[in-house]
Amino acid sequence: MSSTHLGIPKGTRDFGPQVMARRQYIFQTIQGVFRKFGFQPLETPSMENLSVLTGKYGDEGDQLLYKIVDSGDFLKKATSVDFEAGHKKLLPKIASKGLRYDLTVPFARYVAMNRHEIAFPFKRYQMQPVWRADRPQKGRYREFYQCDADVVGTSSLLCEAEIIAMVHEVFAGLGIKDYTIQVNHRQLLAGISEAIGASGRQTELAVSLDKLNKIGPEKVLLELESKGFEKDQLTKLEPLLQWQGTWEQLKQPLQDFIQNSNSGKKGMGDLETILQHVSDMGISNSHVEVNVSLARGLAYYTGTIFEVVVNNAQMSSVCGGGRYDDLTGIFGLPDVSGVGISFGVDRVYDVMEQLQLFPEEELSSSEVLLVALDGESERYALTVLSKLRKNGVASELYPDRGKLKKPLNYANKKGVPLVVLIGPDEVSSGKLTVKHMAEGTQEQLTEEQLVGLLKKGHK
Amino acid sequence: MSSTHLGIPKGTRDFGPQVMARRQYIFQTIQGVFRKFGFQPLETPSMENLSVLTGKYGDEGDQLLYKIVDSGDFLKKATSVDFEAGHKKLLPKIASKGLRYDLTVPFARYVAMNRHEIAFPFKRYQMQPVWRADRPQKGRYREFYQCDADVVGTSSLLCEAEIIAMVHEVFAGLGIKDYTIQVNHRQLLAGISEAIGASGRQTELAVSLDKLNKIGPEKVLLELESKGFEKDQLTKLEPLLQWQGTWEQLKQPLQDFIQNSNSGKKGMGDLETILQHVSDMGISNSHVEVNVSLARGLAYYTGTIFEVVVNNAQMSSVCGGGRYDDLTGIFGLPDVSGVGISFGVDRVYDVMEQLQLFPEEELSSSEVLLVALDGESERYALTVLSKLRKNGVASELYPDRGKLKKPLNYANKKGVPLVVLIGPDEVSSGKLTVKHMAEGTQEQLTEEQLVGLLKKGHK
Repeated sequence: MSSTHLGIPKGTRDFGPQVMARRQYIFQTIQGVFRKFGFQPLETPSMENLSVLTGKYGDEGDQLLYKIVDSGDFLKKATSVDFEAGHKKLLPKIASKGLRYDLTVPFARYVAMNRHEIAFPFKRYQMQPVWRADRPQKGRYREFYQCDADVVGTSSLLCEAEIIAMVHEVFAGLGIKDYTIQVNHRQLLAGISEAIGASGRQTELAVSLDKLNKIGPEKVLLELESKGFEKDQLTKLEPLLQWQGTWEQLKQPLQDFIQNSNSGKKGMGDLETILQHVSDMGISNSHVEVNVSLARGLAYYTGTIFEVVVNNAQMSSVCGGGRYDDLTGIFGLPDVSGVGISFGVDRVYDVMEQLQLFPEEELSSSEVLLVALDGESERYALTVLSKLRKNGVASELYPDRGKLKKPLNYANKKGVPLVVLIGPDEVSSGKLTVKHMAEGTQEQLTEEQLVGLLKKGHK
Repeated sequence: MSSTHLGIPKGTRDFGPQVMARRQYIFQTIQGVFRKFGFQPLETPSMENLSVLTGKYGDEGDQLLYKIVDSGDFLKKATSVDFEAGHKKLLPKIASKGLRYDLTVPFARYVAMNRHEIAFPFKRYQMQPVWRADRPQKGRYREFYQCDADVVGTSSLLCEAEIIAMVHEVFAGLGIKDYTIQVNHRQLLAGISEAIGASGRQTELAVSLDKLNKIGPEKVLLELESKGFEKDQLTKLEPLLQWQGTWEQLKQPLQDFIQNSNSGKKGMGDLETILQHVSDMGISNSHVEVNVSLARGLAYYTGTIFEVVVNNAQMSSVCGGGRYDDLTGIFGLPDVSGVGISFGVDRVYDVMEQLQLFPEEELSSSEVLLVALDGESERYALTVLSKLRKNGVASELYPDRGKLKKPLNYANKKGVPLVVLIGPDEVSSGKLTVKHMAEGTQEQLTEEQLVGLLKKGHK
């Protein structure tokens, strides 16, 4: 058998039991917070019609979409002229579906499709994999999970405050203590654009600012120059590239900078209100920093934007989002304002692993392994097993008989803390031999004592 | 905007909040049982290399695989000769990956790949979607979830007994009371084949028997005749097509029928042992029926086979599985015996809906909606909101102000049981107006009383 049969596609991963236990711990933490904040679950199909997906993520995004070959004779609509014209021309003839690239566009499609049944404001969360044919590298996979929460159908800034509160609660739940919630506002960017004398060019500005962390300030300024921004505009802009700090630190300098720009004032007013709401919830804003050069590439954001960075971790942001005023317009439902946040579970996982934040005991495994030494003991062991499970104790009976070494090895490898030996002596005395694997000790317990021990230890 | 933008691919579905709540209830029930029986989670990528998938599901299965167009210039390996040769010849040049068709083949691939790290016997569960380009119809979707539990690396019949025990526990957990676990054994089929004078033809026999429910006994016999089974063989076989009943009912007639067939005796011995184990666990075998014509199409089964049918539901089986002796052999790891079971969540859902078995209160929603009547009340409401959430109460603040009708409507639609009104009077008196939506009553409660009410009601 050729070894190529045994690979998996580049950029994808198997998740074995230990990794899965940790992933489930992250998912459950995030889901618990989403629910506590009144968000309800939604799932959309892995495949969407390509007409829904293409054109929503820019040209580069369209390249990264996974397309699915039409079923049956996929060439029935294709001519040799299409074939000779090359892959771009042929593609629409042979593929009409693609894999989801993010959760936002399918959500917008769902809202537009179900506008008459939905109770607005609609608060939904969605935790599903997405696929991108990107070049795999550290922290970047071709199949990865997003966990999104969005509320659409209201422009209330309470929603932004709730998002900040949720981020705090998720990170507290995961035990991540040292993180920064960076915030900015597209209108503030517009105000800055105005203030440097480049009114209306905030999108070009944002696209370049977005690269600040990757390429550094000099190259950002060079790129802006090549886009036609003038020397004196860039001279004014330059100091702002370093502006990052608490609202208290930046409020006055920003006010001085944007002066009379209405957009700028709107952006600052929003940020002020949001942070006031957060503080009214009794939550400290010490993790929040205004970052004037935070841009987030996605064109659909129109208001506040967020990005969360874990300090001391080798990872760009693990979480991001913002407000958009017209996400569903492209699907024929205009003027539905909304705001959302997306947690990248795979990045959160990598960061928690780097910082060794996973709790030991979270590994899902059986709490006890029964080992029967002969046929009659096995029958007795089955009754013990039933009793343990009736009491909610995850437990199993080693299926094979033979040397004791094998089940003990099994328990060690799987992390089962207790091994219970049942042989003829145990059956006749009613006292089971209980081995504590970590401590290397053993004791004799009755069935009732064993059940009592495990119930107590895990409630 | 064209309305075609708003569709989803045929055979796929969106799951809104209410459906999701019910689906999560099913997933959690199944997962809870899998864990209690010592199974650990595994997830594999949605995409597998086509070399892993093709040839594992028969020719028909290969047709139903979803294939993914290679990234970038997918035509770079294709010539016009390939194109002119038709879609079957072109496909391998333009697509090297496909979507998972079931969870069993990826599991076998995983076991073979990780044989040196795995602690055998390996008990894994896996709950993920699979994709088949099948013709959509009632109970058959193109994207659907399977929930599988398998144990590999042991041939102990305790594992079969555990599977029967798990099925009982899952169905009890879901509130499904009237169901039948049909069992058969491939060796018993071999014995029957022998007994009618058609030694070694049990696979052909099984393939035809598998269609019994769909096409009826006459057509099954005709099909066998066309395969070359002789008249007198079919005459002997015919009465067995109706044999279905408890082990006690069928044991004697089966023994008489198979006489001295060693295969037949092995099959019967296995079934006897398994049912004895189940009964040793204190579980009644009243739901178990031996069904001599149960075949299950999949060729890789070699021992006991299972299928679960919910009585009085318009649905074929909701769950099935069996023992296989050489699942990983095709990936270069021979002689790893295993046994598994697969729950079809989408079918379980449909059956539970038909029989109205979903509990009302399982709908995940906020327990309370706060409504603030002005800005100052909103600040106060935010402190109440924080206190509720600190106490684990899922709660939200209606984000917009205006007529009371809108938040009340929202609460009704979303199924939020309590609405709390907070205006200037409530702020000054410290007494909140609490509306019980179902009862249509209202009362005045302090913040502490409200928290107490909700903590008590939900713990």
